[in-house]
Amino acid sequence: MAPSFVINGGDFAAAIGKTSSGGRASSVYSEVQTSRIDYALPLPSVLTGPFKIVDGPASSAAGNPDGIASLFPNLFGQPSTMLMPTDGEHALDSGRKLKIGVVLSGGQAPGGHNVISGIFDYLQAHAKGSTVYGFRGGPAGIMKCKYVELTPDYIRPYRNQGGFDMICSGRDKIETPEQFKQAEETAVKLDLDGLVVIGGDDSNTNACLLAENFRSKNLKARVIGCPKTIDGDLKCKEVPTSFGFDTACKIYAEMIGNVMIDARSTGKYYHFVRLMGRAASHITLECALQTHPNITIIGEEEQLMLERDPHGNVQVAKIETEKMLIQMVETELEKRKLEGSYKGQFKGQSHFFGYEGRCGLPTNFDSMYCYALGYAAAVLLHSGKTGLISSVGNLGAPVSEWTVGGTALTSLMDVERRHGKNKPVIKKAMVELEGAPFKKFASMREEWALKNRYISPGPIQFMGPGSDDVNHTLLLELGLVAA
Amino acid sequence: MAPSFVINGGDFAAAIGKTSSGGRASSVYSEVQTSRIDYALPLPSVLTGPFKIVDGPASSAAGNPDGIASLFPNLFGQPSTMLMPTDGEHALDSGRKLKIGVVLSGGQAPGGHNVISGIFDYLQAHAKGSTVYGFRGGPAGIMKCKYVELTPDYIRPYRNQGGFDMICSGRDKIETPEQFKQAEETAVKLDLDGLVVIGGDDSNTNACLLAENFRSKNLKARVIGCPKTIDGDLKCKEVPTSFGFDTACKIYAEMIGNVMIDARSTGKYYHFVRLMGRAASHITLECALQTHPNITIIGEEEQLMLERDPHGNVQVAKIETEKMLIQMVETELEKRKLEGSYKGQFKGQSHFFGYEGRCGLPTNFDSMYCYALGYAAAVLLHSGKTGLISSVGNLGAPVSEWTVGGTALTSLMDVERRHGKNKPVIKKAMVELEGAPFKKFASMREEWALKNRYISPGPIQFMGPGSDDVNHTLLLELGLVAA
Repeated sequence: MAPSFVINGGDFAAAIGKTSSGGRASSVYSEVQTSRIDYALPLPSVLTGPFKIVDGPASSAAGNPDGIASLFPNLFGQPSTMLMPTDGEHALDSGRKLKIGVVLSGGQAPGGHNVISGIFDYLQAHAKGSTVYGFRGGPAGIMKCKYVELTPDYIRPYRNQGGFDMICSGRDKIETPEQFKQAEETAVKLDLDGLVVIGGDDSNTNACLLAENFRSKNLKARVIGCPKTIDGDLKCKEVPTSFGFDTACKIYAEMIGNVMIDARSTGKYYHFVRLMGRAASHITLECALQTHPNITIIGEEEQLMLERDPHGNVQVAKIETEKMLIQMVETELEKRKLEGSYKGQFKGQSHFFGYEGRCGLPTNFDSMYCYALGYAAAVLLHSGKTGLISSVGNLGAPVSEWTVGGTALTSLMDVERRHGKNKPVIKKAMVELEGAPFKKFASMREEWALKNRYISPGPIQFMGPGSDDVNHTLLLELGLVAA
Repeated sequence: MAPSFVINGGDFAAAIGKTSSGGRASSVYSEVQTSRIDYALPLPSVLTGPFKIVDGPASSAAGNPDGIASLFPNLFGQPSTMLMPTDGEHALDSGRKLKIGVVLSGGQAPGGHNVISGIFDYLQAHAKGSTVYGFRGGPAGIMKCKYVELTPDYIRPYRNQGGFDMICSGRDKIETPEQFKQAEETAVKLDLDGLVVIGGDDSNTNACLLAENFRSKNLKARVIGCPKTIDGDLKCKEVPTSFGFDTACKIYAEMIGNVMIDARSTGKYYHFVRLMGRAASHITLECALQTHPNITIIGEEEQLMLERDPHGNVQVAKIETEKMLIQMVETELEKRKLEGSYKGQFKGQSHFFGYEGRCGLPTNFDSMYCYALGYAAAVLLHSGKTGLISSVGNLGAPVSEWTVGGTALTSLMDVERRHGKNKPVIKKAMVELEGAPFKKFASMREEWALKNRYISPGPIQFMGPGSDDVNHTLLLELGLVAA
């Protein structure tokens, strides 16, 4: 009998809505999970002493500034901001109590729980008596005012843990006037000073629309975004990477490396691996840099990209490219056999690595990065900022030297025509063919194709050698390793 | 574009045959791989001081002793043996140089390289000047006399590494009189004192037939087996577990645990997971004990087992049970919807975890266990034993207290009629419904079905918490945790 499992997913979101305690409170933990709860998270040193908040120059937009200005009349042009250490007084009033909401939006990415614990811990340390509401099940939780008040005990079992199950996620969007109205009602009802939206490009666009809307209605609630996506396609100069990318790539690379060793040990199969991802190929490129496969297909180069739907969300992960490729190779080799130009044997074996990467235990990097992102989001709200995305930089340096600030979301936006309307969008960061990661790959791939230069990264380690490594993409983009 | 990789497997076995250096000599290693090379392996204390070799009573067979006696006239009834520490002289002559062959047979299992390094290190330490030949590509390497002479430099990059690529593996069997003749010729040509066969139930049966054959021809070459299979179906009192099972289960459990957290975070899918394995369900049972899924199907209980082919090797891993089960659930729920007895929504998501588990970096347990198995195999050959399987016991205790010996392979055998002939077989160890692992599972599964008691074991750790944990199956079978 081929052994099988069933894991109950379908009813959980409904079930958690009925309970008032956290999903993991009564769960049993593995030894590794338990050990991660108490993993001590260092903070950027600017966050540990008195700091001042320094605004930059007026900002513009990634494209079509007039269009963005008309879509965001209240927010367009506002400066990005940086935290700077100061010898003087701490910039923010620690006597002020805040009411902050937080929401997880879209697909899971390892580290989301740490963003929440970062927000919580900042408020505990610097705005004692503040309240954090976790909206349940994504943006729908805002619209329906479904939330849980977070406490130290509630948060504790989720520290440094994967998944989004502390408050669960969802893919609803706040789009229509009625939905914005519902969000306003929730903000008023809970007397919110701020909201942190943890999400990808669309969710951060949504966060900015919400910030604009609250500002236009003279609501006190501010909105700050946080860059989340394993796909790695939400990034810019000020936001060097989205969280979860590091962990997911390392999990996939472990699997790919194991399959490579398998291939090397038997020579029975040619293995075709497909990875989770949307239009951008950052995950594939990073995994290639980590493992050195013989052939790697980068969509941005191959022009095989499929048309995107109006939401930009083609579910390419559902197209079984790996099986299609095997069939194409079989057909071609059959032809060559008939022609007498091929005499070998070809057996393809397909793999898809997807869901197992989205909810892994966050790497040390993602754990620390997310905690700093959450801390920064809380600082920005505490200082009254809105419409910014939490920005932690200088990531190649030790954590103490990381920079902390907020980037104007409108500065990342362009305008797209959808259904005859002007829509603001944060442009997806695709793999740049002139960028350092791709160039590094391109400089090595011929050798990889002909000689087997496989690397097997092995499982993510939390202690000892390799445990604090950062992914190749980030190091290359930061210029910290040679391209 | 759905990102894809191609990993070249097909030509490697051919390519490695043409090269004289190891497959990894020029490879680049990940930091974790590199750190594992120097991982210090402790030995059972009986192997570190002087020992004597103590034979037990005459042995019989697992079934049909008369049949086994007639198939193994030279070996049937020989005792199993144990190493015992002694205050006196070391039992074995360290001046005697040996020529030993080693072969990897069948599917990969993490730790195989450590068996080889264990053999090599024992001979270096206790029979200086000995030679170890690695037969390439499995038993075919013996028949074709394709081998590499192993050296410290050749072995070094494979220490504590996954895969079988040091000498590669294969699935050929030495069965016909001509094939036995070829094996004899190789043994004579290389002047072999012994051969270690690292394999599963069939390969160890084959090892015993080879031992019988060599003995009947008065060849000096002895043959010792080693218990390898991730499936965990080669075990008995003296051989508490097969190597690779621990690592493979932990890799699959990591993936399952991640998918569980995913399910808990969104509630979008019911996940159906199939695991690699043959007729026995040990991997599934172990992964269930590690992760607590809602439903687990154990073939031995469900009577869904398929007929096996004459070789007992139904490739059940190729039947996509997980997709079949999703369809069955969909059909049933559709029916209930029409009847009005079901109103919910069901979306199934299927997973197959297979190849990525066979070649992972061995856990600390598999690394140490394999090293001791290899060391023991070399001791047995050094003492002139044949037809035994290397046996390392007391595995729940610290390594220093592990027991070391050899078990008569004939004592594990029964007779099966295949194609009208009597064939010796080592009975596959199936999941015992009265055994401690199954009983433990059975005592908890109702709770798991109704409440989500998911555990996410996280990635295998080589240092720190959890790194020296042993799998549940072994601990339960040894009575070291309560059933």
